[in-house]
Amino acid sequence: MTVTITAVEVHDVRFPTAAAGDGSDAINRGDYSATYVELVTDGGAGPTGAGFTFTNGRGNELTCAAVRALAHHVVGRSMAEIVAEPVAFWRSLTADVQLRWVGPEKGVIHMATGALVNAVWDLRAKLDQKPLWRLLAELPTEELVRSVDFHHISDAITADEAAAILDKGFVGWSERLAQVEQSGFPSYTTSVGWLGYPDDKVRALTRQAYAEGWRAMKMKVGGPIDDDVRRARIIREEIGPDALLMMDANQVWDVDEAIANMARLVEFDPYWIEEPTHADDVLGHARIARAVETLSGGRCRVATGEVAANRVIFKQLMQADAIGVCQIDACRIAGVNEVLSVILMAAKFGVPICPHAGGVGLCEYVQHLAIFDYLRVGTSLDGRMVEYVDHLHEHFVDPVRTRGGRYLVPTAPGYSSTMKADSIARFAFPDGPAWR
Amino acid sequence: MTVTITAVEVHDVRFPTAAAGDGSDAINRGDYSATYVELVTDGGAGPTGAGFTFTNGRGNELTCAAVRALAHHVVGRSMAEIVAEPVAFWRSLTADVQLRWVGPEKGVIHMATGALVNAVWDLRAKLDQKPLWRLLAELPTEELVRSVDFHHISDAITADEAAAILDKGFVGWSERLAQVEQSGFPSYTTSVGWLGYPDDKVRALTRQAYAEGWRAMKMKVGGPIDDDVRRARIIREEIGPDALLMMDANQVWDVDEAIANMARLVEFDPYWIEEPTHADDVLGHARIARAVETLSGGRCRVATGEVAANRVIFKQLMQADAIGVCQIDACRIAGVNEVLSVILMAAKFGVPICPHAGGVGLCEYVQHLAIFDYLRVGTSLDGRMVEYVDHLHEHFVDPVRTRGGRYLVPTAPGYSSTMKADSIARFAFPDGPAWR
Repeated sequence: MTVTITAVEVHDVRFPTAAAGDGSDAINRGDYSATYVELVTDGGAGPTGAGFTFTNGRGNELTCAAVRALAHHVVGRSMAEIVAEPVAFWRSLTADVQLRWVGPEKGVIHMATGALVNAVWDLRAKLDQKPLWRLLAELPTEELVRSVDFHHISDAITADEAAAILDKGFVGWSERLAQVEQSGFPSYTTSVGWLGYPDDKVRALTRQAYAEGWRAMKMKVGGPIDDDVRRARIIREEIGPDALLMMDANQVWDVDEAIANMARLVEFDPYWIEEPTHADDVLGHARIARAVETLSGGRCRVATGEVAANRVIFKQLMQADAIGVCQIDACRIAGVNEVLSVILMAAKFGVPICPHAGGVGLCEYVQHLAIFDYLRVGTSLDGRMVEYVDHLHEHFVDPVRTRGGRYLVPTAPGYSSTMKADSIARFAFPDGPAWR
Repeated sequence: MTVTITAVEVHDVRFPTAAAGDGSDAINRGDYSATYVELVTDGGAGPTGAGFTFTNGRGNELTCAAVRALAHHVVGRSMAEIVAEPVAFWRSLTADVQLRWVGPEKGVIHMATGALVNAVWDLRAKLDQKPLWRLLAELPTEELVRSVDFHHISDAITADEAAAILDKGFVGWSERLAQVEQSGFPSYTTSVGWLGYPDDKVRALTRQAYAEGWRAMKMKVGGPIDDDVRRARIIREEIGPDALLMMDANQVWDVDEAIANMARLVEFDPYWIEEPTHADDVLGHARIARAVETLSGGRCRVATGEVAANRVIFKQLMQADAIGVCQIDACRIAGVNEVLSVILMAAKFGVPICPHAGGVGLCEYVQHLAIFDYLRVGTSLDGRMVEYVDHLHEHFVDPVRTRGGRYLVPTAPGYSSTMKADSIARFAFPDGPAWR
């Protein structure tokens, strides 16, 4: 921990996925991209820290520029100093007296903060020679609490409440670890039902996923409702009554429209409806949650979080009883520290964490968060699943591994966020060979 | 209206205001800056469109880059096409299938959209040879309604409700115009009580402002509470019991902290408490609003909006009865079209509009919005005031003019958003003479 960060290097890495229709939904059609950050230290042959935020193609140059704008808060810091005063470090990024204006704590500047903060945690875990989930799960309660900024969420959770949750998390820790190391962590697949896929492709992919062992699958909705109904029927036919079917509207509906459409889609017994309306609409989500609960006889809940801007939005979603599933994203909010605050609030409010993944490297990131949550905070697998999308893992040094619809526990030191040098060079935008 | 936009030029303009302590508050200390956009057309010697978004210094390069990322949606468009399908044009910017991810509809990308959309409205008003307020106030109801994207706010206001409000706004239109042309539009000053100012400067500035005719003044709070109390006492002593004193915490408090601090500050009879907590915290604002109403016997209300990310946040603030004053900003949300939606919701929910100003050029912008609201939507001056800060007006071709604490009605064609070429060159960052 005696190393000092001497430089921040940022790479604009983009994968040309838009043409294939992969990842298409009601509002996005992207070239999956990463604003990829490397922290260089004075530690000689020691590790570099790797972090990134995920974007959808155009705009990745903005998050890259935001990393450069924030880098002066990181360069020159020693890891010892960051570990000693984690919130002071975190706030140097999130509360910069000038940059804060172009957020605050949201969008481009906050996503860039997430890339940097995650890179710091990756570096720390590599220096400790532990995978991030283990580093976090083994930290003393006091240190975890000290890593969370309770500013603006103290009306929902206090440091004392967080400490009590984390202390209790030590009970049964090793049994849970043995369990997850043996059986893996539950997941679900989103690869079967993108809006860009024709019906026969949806049917074939669903059948294949079921054969591979997946018993929870997510489809995109938010197209013309008759099309959504038809595709839901295909998938439900293929997976039978017992497997879970989740639906994701990617924010395209208005509040009343969401309720009206769910009145038709409940026929297919959805386990959740994800992003039924605008990501900022806490009150709208709360209304929809009450409506779908009634429509489904309590079987369907509302899920959201992948586009929730920060811990204050998550706080309200929980205070308003607007979500039954909390879909943290590892790099839209400001990195591990802010994710910790959301995981702790979710535990207090009794909302299961089902992280958002897919994109580039999101599966690699969130497996650590889900396992930490299981070991030390949520302490249950009930209703917990990590999203899984089988895209772009080959570009990572320590890619996710799955077996029978479950994530295997990562063992390499760090946050699994290190991208292969060759991939960075090949997909560098706009000058890499893939884009020339 | 036959012109076509042929180029978007963007300038990073920054004024070195941080050193003076002007504009300092609980969380910001900025070099007031503009991401300044010029729309060039094929109209020969005809006007160019001018728009900008305001930032606080560092980060202005990000909003400039975001304008460049969005510009392809604007270049090549004819004004006739934009006027014929205003929401289609607006959504081309706000719902870009790749750029949306780095918002959505918030922060850097949304502010850049605001600069571009406002530049289009400035161009339109110049082509029509009308000040923007008049262009808007004279538009047929159907055309105003057609300019608003009701997506994600239809649970709060429908197109029919908006039309009814705008139709009713024609009644008494010319009497209100005569009144405001004669007497000006009410305003208040924020120049007396920045946190960076020592007590004697606060007292002297308050006395001077009172002598100049101001009967409504705003102070910053959010420092140590004893300091806030002391400065509130100074200002209230100077202005007497009848003048209005507003307080602005710039989001620094937690929810319970805001309520506790207001229990002390109500002694000085604040007219409103502005930004008492995090800008995204709708439920927190609602709790604070109920508390200060009780604490003040109904005399104090909550105000916010300058950092509200978009119409969905404003919608919820109104649905939750969280604000008694709606402080629209002209360029944080996506320009005139989105501001129209907020003004219409405010009318429906009975919340007076008191626009946020100051910074660079915000006074120039919002006077048009306030006057339009008065003439055609809110139709009352009751509780309406435009913020006024006496900074940086000299850099505008058509600067605001005030008399006795009131804005005089602007008469030049356009949105008063055109900056002097000399100022743009002199304060260009980082290469202008002011920064070299």
